[in-house]
Amino acid sequence: MAHYIGLDLGGTNIKSGVVDDRGQIVAKLSRPTRPETGPDGVLASMVDAAREAADAAKIPLAQIAGVGIGCPGPLDFQKGLVKAAPNLPGWDHVPVRDHIARALGRPAVLENDANAAAFGEFWVGAGRDVQDMVMLTLGTGVGSGLVVEGKIIHGADGLGGEAGHLIVQPNGRRCGCGQRGCLEQYASASSVPRRALDAMAAGRRTILKPTRADGAEIDAQDVFAAAQQGDELALGIVEETAFYLGIGCVNLCRLLDPQMIVFAGGMIHAGEFLFDRVRRVFGEHSWTITDNHVQIVPAKLGSDAGLIGAAAVAQAK
Amino acid sequence: MAHYIGLDLGGTNIKSGVVDDRGQIVAKLSRPTRPETGPDGVLASMVDAAREAADAAKIPLAQIAGVGIGCPGPLDFQKGLVKAAPNLPGWDHVPVRDHIARALGRPAVLENDANAAAFGEFWVGAGRDVQDMVMLTLGTGVGSGLVVEGKIIHGADGLGGEAGHLIVQPNGRRCGCGQRGCLEQYASASSVPRRALDAMAAGRRTILKPTRADGAEIDAQDVFAAAQQGDELALGIVEETAFYLGIGCVNLCRLLDPQMIVFAGGMIHAGEFLFDRVRRVFGEHSWTITDNHVQIVPAKLGSDAGLIGAAAVAQAK
Repeated sequence: MAHYIGLDLGGTNIKSGVVDDRGQIVAKLSRPTRPETGPDGVLASMVDAAREAADAAKIPLAQIAGVGIGCPGPLDFQKGLVKAAPNLPGWDHVPVRDHIARALGRPAVLENDANAAAFGEFWVGAGRDVQDMVMLTLGTGVGSGLVVEGKIIHGADGLGGEAGHLIVQPNGRRCGCGQRGCLEQYASASSVPRRALDAMAAGRRTILKPTRADGAEIDAQDVFAAAQQGDELALGIVEETAFYLGIGCVNLCRLLDPQMIVFAGGMIHAGEFLFDRVRRVFGEHSWTITDNHVQIVPAKLGSDAGLIGAAAVAQAK
Repeated sequence: MAHYIGLDLGGTNIKSGVVDDRGQIVAKLSRPTRPETGPDGVLASMVDAAREAADAAKIPLAQIAGVGIGCPGPLDFQKGLVKAAPNLPGWDHVPVRDHIARALGRPAVLENDANAAAFGEFWVGAGRDVQDMVMLTLGTGVGSGLVVEGKIIHGADGLGGEAGHLIVQPNGRRCGCGQRGCLEQYASASSVPRRALDAMAAGRRTILKPTRADGAEIDAQDVFAAAQQGDELALGIVEETAFYLGIGCVNLCRLLDPQMIVFAGGMIHAGEFLFDRVRRVFGEHSWTITDNHVQIVPAKLGSDAGLIGAAAVAQAK
């Protein structure tokens, strides 16, 4: 049985694990990223995390078949570089792949973090029985990975698979990417409370309060909770979220015709209250000239998807 | 040098040609489809057209390396069937691929007609120097083909690559497919005069007349001509067409990051008057976090793209 190391580099944590060739985690660990240590410090920490995972799994590095690395991007896939990373100050064309391969003495593969997570779900999660799958991660932003005929789509310059920046409402809400009306502006976990606060600022009545008892701003969960209690403002926000997710799903189907669209990220805790609405919008807005059999389902691997997917990328190499 | 036969089945004409392995047409011909003869009649005619092309090229059938067949769909790629075809009454799961392979004694491959045309442009037309390309054919509808890393995207059920049915305006104009706000409703050659006529019916002033001297309804070319003369209504229609094409291009880039987007079909005769506007909208609406280097260009192969592309599909098999 072959074993792979999966590394998942985030702005907050580095996750590392040894994963076998059936996608089972043998050992895993997490340590803080400490971005302030710069590329050199973070790379050294990633190497340590990989070694520790191998130790914990009691598998000598020499028996690790490959290392997969999920990183925020944009990346240069050919050269194995992280070109830049919004949450990692000072990262400018960092040769992550070759550094880690050299330090560990094992072949390494670099992948975008959202793609890696999608590939993990594709390998042993929600998408394990399909060949064509799209995953949308509804977090602070909306990340995505497109798997077509079992392979991740990168695009000519490594910038494909950004479904969070599909324009779903021309001239709609302004996005940090410079576009207007991106799916992310309606479907990310952070956009939900933001739109609720906008509506409250405009004087709409609601049971929601701008801040919680602890002084923190409300989050998506608060809005969903209010919607489930029948609050009209909150319900309107949830319906709008589901509407644009549904339109986004239609567009993904028209281009890629996947068997499955998987939603991941914190927002999926809203469960069927959200999924039912998305499926209804999809059904109402998708074409009628063929059956619409795409499955719209929640992810299964939770926060392990990234490191399992990184290992999957190493295996698929 | 290997030779292939390309067949391009349309509702009006069957085109047939012998194409060499560098994409040059050695011989070609066209004959009426006569859909009223039913699947058997049309298939017999396709076989005849293939034989005639080989005769005209003076290449014995036995030396033809393969036959590519571009057909309207939906298709069953696995089984080589045309499941249905709106312009070919009575076509219900017709085994086109195997019938033609058997009749000609050569291996045959079936492909969607829009995909085949895109693959032709990719092989030896506008996209000959790129690996990732999207083609939109702006005809009666908007057909499309997506080429990713040199391969056509089909989707799980053969229904991918339908960029004409991307929803670019949620709850927008109703489309024949059952959706609302499809790109096709704003960017097809038939939608241009239709929207002009709608605006005239609503009382807008224009130099356009609903019908021409010969009694025929106006077409896209009339609208573009009026726009070039400064007619406000016509110019508004052209701007709207360019706007939605630009938004569609942004969305194609976010998912697939192609090097090139090619427009084909009658509408491209409008030339830079249209392309300039589309590129401007694209530039204004695409993200600013990376350079936007996609080329948006006209197709080069004209009405030969379909048969050249069918031959290309046979070669790529």
